[in-house]
Amino acid sequence: MAALSTTLPLTRDSVLQAHKVIQPHVHRTPVVTNQTLSQLASTPRQDLEGTRFAGREPAKPVLRLWFKCENLQRIGAFKVRGAFYALHRLAQEPGWVEGGGREKGVVTHSSGNHAQALALAARENGIAAHIVMPHISIPAKIAGTKGYGANVIFSGSTSVEREAVTEKVIAETGARLVSPYDHPDIMLGQGTLGLELQEQVERSIAEGVNPAGQALRGVYEGAALKKTRKGLDAVIAPCGGGGMLSGVALSCEGTGIRVFGAEPSHQGADDAKRGYEAGERVEAVSSLTVADGLRTPVGKHPWSVIYERRLVSGLFSVTDEEILRAMRLVYERMKMVVEPSACVPLAVALFDEDFRGMVEREAGEEGWDLGVVFSGGNVAVEALGKLLGGEN
Amino acid sequence: MAALSTTLPLTRDSVLQAHKVIQPHVHRTPVVTNQTLSQLASTPRQDLEGTRFAGREPAKPVLRLWFKCENLQRIGAFKVRGAFYALHRLAQEPGWVEGGGREKGVVTHSSGNHAQALALAARENGIAAHIVMPHISIPAKIAGTKGYGANVIFSGSTSVEREAVTEKVIAETGARLVSPYDHPDIMLGQGTLGLELQEQVERSIAEGVNPAGQALRGVYEGAALKKTRKGLDAVIAPCGGGGMLSGVALSCEGTGIRVFGAEPSHQGADDAKRGYEAGERVEAVSSLTVADGLRTPVGKHPWSVIYERRLVSGLFSVTDEEILRAMRLVYERMKMVVEPSACVPLAVALFDEDFRGMVEREAGEEGWDLGVVFSGGNVAVEALGKLLGGEN
Repeated sequence: MAALSTTLPLTRDSVLQAHKVIQPHVHRTPVVTNQTLSQLASTPRQDLEGTRFAGREPAKPVLRLWFKCENLQRIGAFKVRGAFYALHRLAQEPGWVEGGGREKGVVTHSSGNHAQALALAARENGIAAHIVMPHISIPAKIAGTKGYGANVIFSGSTSVEREAVTEKVIAETGARLVSPYDHPDIMLGQGTLGLELQEQVERSIAEGVNPAGQALRGVYEGAALKKTRKGLDAVIAPCGGGGMLSGVALSCEGTGIRVFGAEPSHQGADDAKRGYEAGERVEAVSSLTVADGLRTPVGKHPWSVIYERRLVSGLFSVTDEEILRAMRLVYERMKMVVEPSACVPLAVALFDEDFRGMVEREAGEEGWDLGVVFSGGNVAVEALGKLLGGEN
Repeated sequence: MAALSTTLPLTRDSVLQAHKVIQPHVHRTPVVTNQTLSQLASTPRQDLEGTRFAGREPAKPVLRLWFKCENLQRIGAFKVRGAFYALHRLAQEPGWVEGGGREKGVVTHSSGNHAQALALAARENGIAAHIVMPHISIPAKIAGTKGYGANVIFSGSTSVEREAVTEKVIAETGARLVSPYDHPDIMLGQGTLGLELQEQVERSIAEGVNPAGQALRGVYEGAALKKTRKGLDAVIAPCGGGGMLSGVALSCEGTGIRVFGAEPSHQGADDAKRGYEAGERVEAVSSLTVADGLRTPVGKHPWSVIYERRLVSGLFSVTDEEILRAMRLVYERMKMVVEPSACVPLAVALFDEDFRGMVEREAGEEGWDLGVVFSGGNVAVEALGKLLGGEN
């Protein structure tokens, strides 16, 4: 990463600047609406018995959902935004190019979306990329990363083993480490999706048509016709390392749009929520939640935005069962391929009575236009039957 | 169905009239582009050994693919178009309403997309619907059809058993039969997707942006900049009963756009292709191809357009393995949920050397802008792992 001393301040304006830089390299992913899911989100749950909300009066929120489809982003996830911006910033560093920075390259350890994002961004910037992956990674991911021209180096699967191999690569090549989330440049890059989402929803409501060019109808008409505020009221995004959530929060700063984080609760993967409530960042997590992109603890830099500056209004967590239920609805009703991590915000909107009760109290009958971030769509297709068939 | 004596002539103009009727009731589904798949389609196959094309020089076609996403249609498939149009026509029949037509209702036997399409169209027209389904139908499909308010009647699973129960329903209720494909009204209704596809691609090319509003780039730039013809050169659509293929062919009549049909070859499901080549319609098929929507033989009325009027320029067939390979690419690279039948045209474009060789010969370096119909997205999610994981 570029030196911390050179990063732009963590403001909405810096996200706008990052957007100008990466725009030519990333997709402006579509925002889609969905009648069925918005209606479901706006219907009181009839199935609270046997859940952690048993005995409560079901909440009656009104929610119009606007899905930001980063599953349709390049490499299938939002991670390219941060990767392109981080490499741009690195190349701006005085002396980096002249010192052979491109040839020495960049390095990261990841078996997920960040690996492919960095490999792609490096290739398009003419920079060497070294990716440390556990040797147990699935062949498709290894092939994908190699396909972008990266040098894949295998390691053991614990974080200690992976970091040791990474250090070795740095010592041997002089490559610069590019972190998946814990750096201001990554946060600013990922936050650009929040800017697009705001603009796309505002335009849709102003023109009375959804982003596919069809008249807003059904539950969405209310947004165009009745509300005083013509645009998003809130955004909910997944929170793993927190790079994207904090970036989206920055993109909303000063707009009046509230930002929420969504986490899996399985085996304590809701570290950000717990830390937020306890007033102290949780630094280690060991969870095998099905939302495999969200198994990491929140990083220090994201935390400074999410908690210390209170740019995130709250965090909510859902069970793996709720995540898979939401995922199944996305496949069946939206015909969209998403990975489990991407379904966590929708699961909160549909199933978390704490969140739903808050929307009911705060928004009343007018309801909220809620941006829901579909963070990625990289799921091993072989596993889909098991993921989607396990419950009904 | 309305009496044959009252149907509009089988012309493009009649498809335009049907479009005006059904437009308020169906989605104008998006057309999407995809760099990766168009590049793949435009790359000579390196893997012909061991296939039925072994020993051939790989074809070198140039293909820019434009996908018409009827998987995002209401009920998840194009079938609502024909159903809405058929019911509109029935209601126009002199004396039908006064004679208690709405209350007597309509009936069909189907376990697939036609059942749900008819149930939905009937509900929105205030008409009773009786749907005969084999008792072995999967629960989700039964629930879906009941969910639209239809009266579901169970039968055995052979066509003789299903037809007997249907006859009984007609005798008892006076309901009118609505065929899934073998009627001019159904053909004209389904053909409306072809009109939209033509308009959507023309507009994209004229404006230099894809339907999501992004500049055409990569392989698609050629379409905007180099070609003399600014729009589709050809369309390829799945062929089961042939209602949709013949309707799409009518929608292209006189436009210069060539129309092709795509079939599974498994266990003789390529009846239309065989009949086309032999000069006589094949009237029975017994195939368990994975493309379960395409197990039926072509109907008499569709045949009159496809073969007798030669509005379809050719038919091509692919193996189940090729269909599933195409399907996997759609999930992995397009992040779109489609059913196996919907992937048959793409499989032809990617894997059928007869088709690919023809495109190379006829279009040369300029290549074709090819409309590819994604007919539906209704797949049992529990089966996805098996469907997509079975091969690599």
